[in-house]
Amino acid sequence: MQDIYEKILMLAKRRGILFPSFEIYGGSAGFYDYGPIGSLLKHNIENLWREYYLIKENFLEIETPTITIYDVLKASGHVDEFTDLMLICSKCNRAFKAEEVFPDLSEKEIVEAIKEGKLKCPDCNAKIDKSEPFNLMFSTTIGAGKGRKGFLRPETAQGIFTNFHLLYRYIREKIPFGVIQIGRGYRNEIAPRQGIIRLREFSMAEAEVFFDPKEKSHPKYEEIKRNKIRIVYDDKEEIISIEDAVNRKIIANDALAYYMSLTQDFLIECGIDKQKLRFRKHNPDELAHYANECWDAEIYSERFGWIECVGIADRSAYDLKAHIEASGKDMYAIRRFKDAKEEKILKIVPNMKKIGSKFREKAQKIKQELEKIEPNKIKDKISIEVDGEKIELTREYFDVIESKEKKTIEKFVPHVIEPSYGIDRIIYGILEHNFFETMKKGEKYTILKLNPKIAPIKAGIFPLVNDKRLVDKAKEIEKDLRETHKLVVYYDDSGTIGRRYARMDEIGTPFCITVDHQTIEDDTVTVRDRDTTKQIRLKISDLPKYLKEKIAAL
Amino acid sequence: MQDIYEKILMLAKRRGILFPSFEIYGGSAGFYDYGPIGSLLKHNIENLWREYYLIKENFLEIETPTITIYDVLKASGHVDEFTDLMLICSKCNRAFKAEEVFPDLSEKEIVEAIKEGKLKCPDCNAKIDKSEPFNLMFSTTIGAGKGRKGFLRPETAQGIFTNFHLLYRYIREKIPFGVIQIGRGYRNEIAPRQGIIRLREFSMAEAEVFFDPKEKSHPKYEEIKRNKIRIVYDDKEEIISIEDAVNRKIIANDALAYYMSLTQDFLIECGIDKQKLRFRKHNPDELAHYANECWDAEIYSERFGWIECVGIADRSAYDLKAHIEASGKDMYAIRRFKDAKEEKILKIVPNMKKIGSKFREKAQKIKQELEKIEPNKIKDKISIEVDGEKIELTREYFDVIESKEKKTIEKFVPHVIEPSYGIDRIIYGILEHNFFETMKKGEKYTILKLNPKIAPIKAGIFPLVNDKRLVDKAKEIEKDLRETHKLVVYYDDSGTIGRRYARMDEIGTPFCITVDHQTIEDDTVTVRDRDTTKQIRLKISDLPKYLKEKIAAL
Repeated sequence: MQDIYEKILMLAKRRGILFPSFEIYGGSAGFYDYGPIGSLLKHNIENLWREYYLIKENFLEIETPTITIYDVLKASGHVDEFTDLMLICSKCNRAFKAEEVFPDLSEKEIVEAIKEGKLKCPDCNAKIDKSEPFNLMFSTTIGAGKGRKGFLRPETAQGIFTNFHLLYRYIREKIPFGVIQIGRGYRNEIAPRQGIIRLREFSMAEAEVFFDPKEKSHPKYEEIKRNKIRIVYDDKEEIISIEDAVNRKIIANDALAYYMSLTQDFLIECGIDKQKLRFRKHNPDELAHYANECWDAEIYSERFGWIECVGIADRSAYDLKAHIEASGKDMYAIRRFKDAKEEKILKIVPNMKKIGSKFREKAQKIKQELEKIEPNKIKDKISIEVDGEKIELTREYFDVIESKEKKTIEKFVPHVIEPSYGIDRIIYGILEHNFFETMKKGEKYTILKLNPKIAPIKAGIFPLVNDKRLVDKAKEIEKDLRETHKLVVYYDDSGTIGRRYARMDEIGTPFCITVDHQTIEDDTVTVRDRDTTKQIRLKISDLPKYLKEKIAAL
Repeated sequence: MQDIYEKILMLAKRRGILFPSFEIYGGSAGFYDYGPIGSLLKHNIENLWREYYLIKENFLEIETPTITIYDVLKASGHVDEFTDLMLICSKCNRAFKAEEVFPDLSEKEIVEAIKEGKLKCPDCNAKIDKSEPFNLMFSTTIGAGKGRKGFLRPETAQGIFTNFHLLYRYIREKIPFGVIQIGRGYRNEIAPRQGIIRLREFSMAEAEVFFDPKEKSHPKYEEIKRNKIRIVYDDKEEIISIEDAVNRKIIANDALAYYMSLTQDFLIECGIDKQKLRFRKHNPDELAHYANECWDAEIYSERFGWIECVGIADRSAYDLKAHIEASGKDMYAIRRFKDAKEEKILKIVPNMKKIGSKFREKAQKIKQELEKIEPNKIKDKISIEVDGEKIELTREYFDVIESKEKKTIEKFVPHVIEPSYGIDRIIYGILEHNFFETMKKGEKYTILKLNPKIAPIKAGIFPLVNDKRLVDKAKEIEKDLRETHKLVVYYDDSGTIGRRYARMDEIGTPFCITVDHQTIEDDTVTVRDRDTTKQIRLKISDLPKYLKEKIAAL
């Protein structure tokens, strides 16, 4: 018996949705191609995502390279922390991802179990005697010879962070603001075994929303706070209103909560079954190195169980701080006060007369060292080092004076809330949740009940019989809908009408337009609805409006 | 004095069009980021390209990984042939691309000149004593440990070729058909020195059109054959009709010619100046390893001269043949005959009696060898080898008989015509060709006269003065145009109206809508045209239709 995953992959290959990559050369785990139908579907999903983030949220979109220089990913922590624990079997020489082979053990427990000789290789059953962290970035060399070390980006986000100062200036220093990027991400999985679910090269859609940490709220929070979501946290599961979850501090702040609600809306509009959608809070020990709170939107799959398809993380000031430190660049935002604030300023004033008479030629260097010290850390004595010599200075050598200054602005490092979507997994989820099998005339019949808005092909167009007048008319309608109205439609005159409906049903085409003899007389056609199979008669001239409304409406 | 290239890069950085990548870490040659305005522009250009190829040509679109396994690129010839000649200075240890440093010398002449000690290092002036081919692909390793060798794709085309059999089946075995892919391509340039013009990671839009080699023609050729193009070939330049160029065999076939004409239409609609556009035929010695004829669409840039932005190549059967040979897979197309063809078939019939009595235990092996021989190559004698022994057979040992068979189909390897567009260079060309400077009130004034169809922002929306009623109305119009009509518009209330016009003019916004006191009374606004600076008054309710028509019309 095939399970639904196998059925979908077979349909996907036969009908141009997904192909395993490089198949003529035996394939390579973790890579998939989008065929003609899959590519249309993917575009529609990405454009729907843009509708949410670019149009409704009014965020900025940017596009940065997939190759990223070492410096960026060293600063971001990925060089040191973006790893999986790898098990190596020294008998059969195979490598495994510890988490995949022993999902119930923590990293600590695995290391323990290896020491005790308790772990067996899943392939050859020998004792596993080695584990080590494996960095998941694909690396490459830029330029000739030794060149410069680079990686394929593990996330699109770093391309946004490293441009923060330019984007902040572009938007004329207003905060909060959001920046999105849609594009390829890479993760050199040790030995992926889950087909389309665990890809080494995937498509992501990420939004990095920059907040003043003192105001982590969203202007549209009021509109969504009564929405319900299904959450899993601390081994509990409940359906709860956004507001409740925030008030009970299950969700840290209302900005994070807002993007959870937005994600739910988006996934449901895509066609994810609400019954098969939940948000799971990361346990502290599974948080990524940059996150201080993270929620995964998980969708249920019959074969794989709950799979993560969106991560909504509070990255705090982690990334910008890291880049400020590593690059020395000014990537702060500015907080402007309505009223100037008066602030106490402490200042160290060296007593140069005393210092000069005691330390002579070292006086200038001592002065410089003194001025580097944070004034409110000063006790009665200070120890400094000059030319390798330790010098102790008592209060007679310096003063700490207090003055008042008026401040109208202050600098801060913005915090980041990040909704990060895995497009390929969402596509798989959509296929599984909308895949229906029935029987028709004793044969299996497949319908993909896609939301018309994301359906790859909007309408099939058929001449009822192979009569030149009908064929010409059908082709004319096809050309008009395609070229004038930019609707993706598909002309088909081969086989029975039933067979043609079936072909459209299995790739989720919501409407089928048939040209018959009456069409020649009164310029009307029949339009069949995929889900109800009901037909109505419409004037040809009303088709564009009818289709456009149906496509946008759901 | 800044040249236009510097002016454009400054504008591009200031206004969020293009940023040098990784700049906070000192940057890396050959990488650029698209900022918010650049990203919108890029999308619009890619979507316009889809209008040509996906909608009007009705091609299929696919998406394949950027990481490509070794086998694919070994078969395609890229592992062995995708190289630049690299010069290495053993004194200063720098590497150079020979073609860039000595553009007037052929590879042969460079190798000669090195032998004679005539080439000097452009950096340290020492004698260059070494040259070698440098492979231009970024390489990486897939998986843990030794893993599997892979590259970042040098072109999107191979992802299409390796799926040919699936795509051919998907389209139900009709030929010709076209497949497109838009995405990143990579070229590990030795030492790129031309900024945005020579990128190591770039965006390509490629179409691979599969033809029966016996019918390399295009159904719409008649419609375009009278179009004129400017061509350069054999050191000649002329403006000529497509038809003339094909008839005089300057362009090899009308399919190739059709895509040259389509490319010209596309580039002109993008905003490339027709006076700064030409098509140059490759000399035989500069053809890529896969091409047997290639035309470059070149656009003129003040700093760089003529730069290639599209290559239109006849790749013949090169790629599919290579993949058939390397993978052993059936990637043929089928030619169906209207009437069954009768064909003479020659067959070798060994005379086993004679062979048996002479050669005994070798008889079976001799039979096998005989049957391997192509029958119409057979003369009176045949030499074969069995177990290392040469055996000569005269006619008494075998017969060649002729029979007739009826054939209704035959297999063939399709030919490929490939228009391949470099999106980034086209974008630079558009910026340069549409960049105008004038003086306004004694100050420099920049206008980017972009075609409204590709302009990043379609309209600026301004309240005339800072009156709450005007501000609210302007924001309401902005929200409606953005959310209901999906138009990218920009609200601005800061500075004088003149300053706000200026901001929109320099990023090519074609229209500016101003809300004034009259708006409150009669729901009309002024609409200013960027190029004429003329203003008209329109009802707010007519805005969407007006803008949409203007945007699509040009």
